[in-house]
Amino acid sequence: MLHSFILRLLLTALVFLRIEVYAQTLADRLGYPAGTKLVIIHADDLGETHAVNAAAMKAFETGAINSASIMVPCPWFPEMADYAKSHPDADLGLHLTLTAERVFYRWGLVAPSDKAPSLVDSNGYFHHDWTPQQQINPVDVERELRAQIQRALAMGVHPTHLDSHQYRLIMTGKDLFDVMVRLGHEYHLPIFVTRDWFADHPYLTTSLGPEDIVIDHTVTIEPSVSAGKWNDFYLTALKSLQPGVTEFVIHPGFADDELRAATRERDTWGAAWRQRDYDFFTGKKFRRTLAKQHIQMITWRELAKRAAK
Amino acid sequence: MLHSFILRLLLTALVFLRIEVYAQTLADRLGYPAGTKLVIIHADDLGETHAVNAAAMKAFETGAINSASIMVPCPWFPEMADYAKSHPDADLGLHLTLTAERVFYRWGLVAPSDKAPSLVDSNGYFHHDWTPQQQINPVDVERELRAQIQRALAMGVHPTHLDSHQYRLIMTGKDLFDVMVRLGHEYHLPIFVTRDWFADHPYLTTSLGPEDIVIDHTVTIEPSVSAGKWNDFYLTALKSLQPGVTEFVIHPGFADDELRAATRERDTWGAAWRQRDYDFFTGKKFRRTLAKQHIQMITWRELAKRAAK
Repeated sequence: MLHSFILRLLLTALVFLRIEVYAQTLADRLGYPAGTKLVIIHADDLGETHAVNAAAMKAFETGAINSASIMVPCPWFPEMADYAKSHPDADLGLHLTLTAERVFYRWGLVAPSDKAPSLVDSNGYFHHDWTPQQQINPVDVERELRAQIQRALAMGVHPTHLDSHQYRLIMTGKDLFDVMVRLGHEYHLPIFVTRDWFADHPYLTTSLGPEDIVIDHTVTIEPSVSAGKWNDFYLTALKSLQPGVTEFVIHPGFADDELRAATRERDTWGAAWRQRDYDFFTGKKFRRTLAKQHIQMITWRELAKRAAK
Repeated sequence: MLHSFILRLLLTALVFLRIEVYAQTLADRLGYPAGTKLVIIHADDLGETHAVNAAAMKAFETGAINSASIMVPCPWFPEMADYAKSHPDADLGLHLTLTAERVFYRWGLVAPSDKAPSLVDSNGYFHHDWTPQQQINPVDVERELRAQIQRALAMGVHPTHLDSHQYRLIMTGKDLFDVMVRLGHEYHLPIFVTRDWFADHPYLTTSLGPEDIVIDHTVTIEPSVSAGKWNDFYLTALKSLQPGVTEFVIHPGFADDELRAATRERDTWGAAWRQRDYDFFTGKKFRRTLAKQHIQMITWRELAKRAAK
């Protein structure tokens, strides 16, 4: 009886603590002046194709992006590992990958394929998609993600954060998210989670500890935005940006023969899509809007450093 | 005593039989008129990059090549598997692959990596090169090659022949060559071997049976040929062609951003090299010289069909 009362008291305290934490923005928590607007301009899918690597390297150089994450199982990962070694200050995370979503160009496990059978199709590639019928085994997931992190470290990549290709580790359920959290804690790496997702996926809050970095908001373009409205979408997002830390998840790439061929079965996240992202973020309008709205750029490395103080 | 005499007699008979077989050209053996000159114009490395796939598909279409082989472990294999399914008459073999010879773009096993440990480096890719210190285990080789053939069959490729990427299965020794011969026999597929190699590698003759197809000659360009002498090399080879069946092993590819990036660490078999091959064999000089020299083109499929009669 007394035990149960104390337990209830503790749980209530925990909920209040959590609300207290999230009433503040991450920027507040990290000591920025009230109302500060910070953005991470983050490129996804590095390593997937050369066209994506080349665009990301160019976008880093021009300051269009300040962060990105790399897909270790993909064929062009060694090119990005080489870049990471020669650019030790670049804010590069690992884009933990468990699917091979293209048709004519594919990849598979880093772990031995018989050690993570639920993750591969009958031809030995990662599944093209996950269906409710597929029983994705969290044990397989952990084994494969460890192999990805180990290969990255062995090849000289020192990641600043972890995120999840196609949000598979975020959106599939508590079991897989817990694997990601566990690996983040073990390797002392922040994982990309935003408060925007808490309402739909309550298990995200319960798995995270009070020390974990939680991004305030995220912006990413969806297939519902037509090509002609691309720049408007981003400009509106920047102009209506909330205080706190917002990660823009973008997909720059050069629409050359390789990328067109690799993505030709559908337009979504295809070559033209990625070229539009590259064009907007390397363009003057983006730069000018940032300045006009007093938006500052911040990296995962800076967030983690500040949070550790 | 008697046994040993009979054995010696049999061995002598076998040697004579072999000499008899190879005194004839393959063309003679297959019933072509004496002096007939046949060529297979064979593109290697399909599946390795999109630029190589695109060049090969175009070269097939224009008749510049009439045969090619595909690397099953490579990321662009699915594109060629799709092509093979929609072009069932195309003469496509499997380019059995046990190395990943590039630096910024790599691939690994089809078999589970813990099932063929001698074939992979510490990062899980195929070795960049084979050194005498590496103990390549023939058991691992057989396991991996079976996995490559099985994946190809499962994905709808019905190969017409087998050959070996970088000639690893030919040049490394009898143990590995025997694996290739065994798989060729088991899957009823001719393997690419030419009499040109017998002097340097005597085990090739002892492993083959009298029913095996042996190509008379092969022509392939080497790094010693300068870019300016490219066409001369091929024209001279065509003009001095011997009777029998000759396989031209060529490496067409488009020197675009992808291929330049994938091959940038060295010029040999690089983007410019592959573009030169594409340009020569799709050009008029090649076509005209074939006609002038009364050279006919033949595929692996035709050879196997004729040999089976």
